[in-house]
Amino acid sequence: MSKSIFYHAGCPVCISAEHDIIGLVGESNVEVVHLGEDRDRINEAEKAGVKSVPALLTPNGNVLHLNFGASMEDVKR
Amino acid sequence: MSKSIFYHAGCPVCISAEHDIIGLVGESNVEVVHLGEDRDRINEAEKAGVKSVPALLTPNGNVLHLNFGASMEDVKR
Repeated sequence: MSKSIFYHAGCPVCISAEHDIIGLVGESNVEVVHLGEDRDRINEAEKAGVKSVPALLTPNGNVLHLNFGASMEDVKR
Repeated sequence: MSKSIFYHAGCPVCISAEHDIIGLVGESNVEVVHLGEDRDRINEAEKAGVKSVPALLTPNGNVLHLNFGASMEDVKR
């Protein structure tokens, strides 16, 4: 895994953080996953340790929860 | 302001996030400020919107709170 993965759910906090992360890391270095639309990736995100969105999974497997938009329980609803 | 500023307080969550951010953004693009040691910068951090550490202030003035190490109230103690 060489790219980071940015998980979000379309919330305003998510969109703002997405812009910030892409500005910092570069668009080519981050895969953006909208868990509200890509619901079959919720399980993958939870296994990686994502507890809320927006969150950034780094290439070394750490999860950075960025501010707070919604819990994974909310995303699943 | 062209660099990001990473505010932390030396906590384990802070150190881990610092490594992740430096790995993602590059060491030359981020100034690291230890608010436990640089206590005269606490006011500046709060004015920028930092509510807990670790936090990253982006070049465009947004604050990303990364996971949760300690509140600013704890940092001031």
